[in-house]
Amino acid sequence: MINQLVKKIQELEAPIVVGLDPMLSYVPNHLLEQAYKDMGENLEAATEAIWQYNKGIIDAIHDLVPAVKPQVAMYEQFGLEGMRLYLKTIQYARKKGLIVIGDVKRGDIGSTSTAYAIGHLGKVNIGGKDYRGFDEDFITVNPYLGSDGIIPFIDVCKQENKGLFILVKTSNPSSGEFQDQLINGRPLYELVGNKVAQWGDMFMGSDYSYIGAVVGATYPEIGKELRKLMPKTFILVPGYGAQGGKAEDLKHFFNKDGLGAIVNSSRGIIAAYKLAQYEKYTGEFYADASRQAVLDMREDLKKAWANS
Amino acid sequence: MINQLVKKIQELEAPIVVGLDPMLSYVPNHLLEQAYKDMGENLEAATEAIWQYNKGIIDAIHDLVPAVKPQVAMYEQFGLEGMRLYLKTIQYARKKGLIVIGDVKRGDIGSTSTAYAIGHLGKVNIGGKDYRGFDEDFITVNPYLGSDGIIPFIDVCKQENKGLFILVKTSNPSSGEFQDQLINGRPLYELVGNKVAQWGDMFMGSDYSYIGAVVGATYPEIGKELRKLMPKTFILVPGYGAQGGKAEDLKHFFNKDGLGAIVNSSRGIIAAYKLAQYEKYTGEFYADASRQAVLDMREDLKKAWANS
Repeated sequence: MINQLVKKIQELEAPIVVGLDPMLSYVPNHLLEQAYKDMGENLEAATEAIWQYNKGIIDAIHDLVPAVKPQVAMYEQFGLEGMRLYLKTIQYARKKGLIVIGDVKRGDIGSTSTAYAIGHLGKVNIGGKDYRGFDEDFITVNPYLGSDGIIPFIDVCKQENKGLFILVKTSNPSSGEFQDQLINGRPLYELVGNKVAQWGDMFMGSDYSYIGAVVGATYPEIGKELRKLMPKTFILVPGYGAQGGKAEDLKHFFNKDGLGAIVNSSRGIIAAYKLAQYEKYTGEFYADASRQAVLDMREDLKKAWANS
Repeated sequence: MINQLVKKIQELEAPIVVGLDPMLSYVPNHLLEQAYKDMGENLEAATEAIWQYNKGIIDAIHDLVPAVKPQVAMYEQFGLEGMRLYLKTIQYARKKGLIVIGDVKRGDIGSTSTAYAIGHLGKVNIGGKDYRGFDEDFITVNPYLGSDGIIPFIDVCKQENKGLFILVKTSNPSSGEFQDQLINGRPLYELVGNKVAQWGDMFMGSDYSYIGAVVGATYPEIGKELRKLMPKTFILVPGYGAQGGKAEDLKHFFNKDGLGAIVNSSRGIIAAYKLAQYEKYTGEFYADASRQAVLDMREDLKKAWANS
């Protein structure tokens, strides 16, 4: 799956993943009104409107980018109906040829991590038949519990030819509170980065490992260090756009081969129609605004590449 | 909710939470056979059998313990059907008067943590009506992202009168890989413990904070340190029984008032009928074995109390 991700990034010249992190407030009025008219103003109608919204975005961007990254929390907030929508969104994205990175940030002790890995990447067998849970291609994982919380995920990745992105340095303002603390003179994120590189050796693709890392665009200098520390690790980079990460800062996350990273944008693409820059697109044309935002992001990143 | 938990622990003389972490292999044959007969040997039948199994355990233990702790991973492994079962289990446990600690170990950047908090502790409002997602009373949270990943959970706790248990030192063998690393001569878990105590000040109950900690029974000396460091923090203690934590080690997790901790047992209670100790209970009497295992655990802990 990592080889496929690399290949698609090269073909499309787009190291971009679109974050499908819907808020009800992003959904254009015409979709909400239609759903409420058809189904009443209730939870089922709201999740139906979000589904139509997601579908419109996937239809508009699936030929431009290799992958989408649904953030499960945005679905989990609507409880069971939300999880149904999460699954439907994953299935549709896969059908349209997109690689799906489930941003689930799971992680627990060994046997529990196995259960998470089965639910998101693997399958259960009942009566001789396999059942897949959410069936993402990659998921994000939290490293706080150490190796025996991570290796069960890697074992399932090996069986399924799937991959992980493990949190190393997150994009949020207070990520340094623990992640930047010095241990023998080196920050915790380096210790975690070293571990991710070691875990990565357990399951290598052609040039990069199936076991990737998450490093926030908002910390470009740290990105630069970690890029060197983990040369075969693919880096998922959140924090571009709405969170403040700039394209010129992103070059540090890439290797000399122009690869090694994939940059996420969520709000800046899926809610592009609400930005001043795309005001010519009204809510009814939200998907066209998303498509244009992807094209603009691709150009923006190419500039960063050209200068690197 | 923390006051209610303390009160129930005192009334029942049982600082015990039963971990509802079902594996299909724990479900007694008669329940599986009945479900397969009724519904065919498929995923829906398997989750129905687990539901009957959970229900039997809840019925058998609800008058003995204050709380149950379903581990969401064990449900998530069955995908959407599993999440339906998770919700049904929570709703039934609450109906039987049990406090529900959702062991979900969620945690992300600010806006995403808000969404998780809404889905598990809060509600969404659509068309003037509130909808609750999974509606646990407490959930477990991962601190790796720092304060701005935690405070959104606390905000929702304040609105809902609910609580958290934040991972400090986990029970698994490799938890020390990052958690024990020394920062200015003190281990990371102490730094996290200090933060948990500070976050706890943001939402105090009568004697203890709504914001608790997770510290594994398998590290009693660390439990002793953390108990002193976080005097008003309620500690959720996993790792007793099957993972190797012993009752005599548990006294360190309690304050002089005999309170301040609640000890989890999962496999040792829900799959008690499979243990040599309870071999007189056949599968059909699995729930009776679970009840006896709770009674035995209560005695075991009382001994630890008596010696403390």
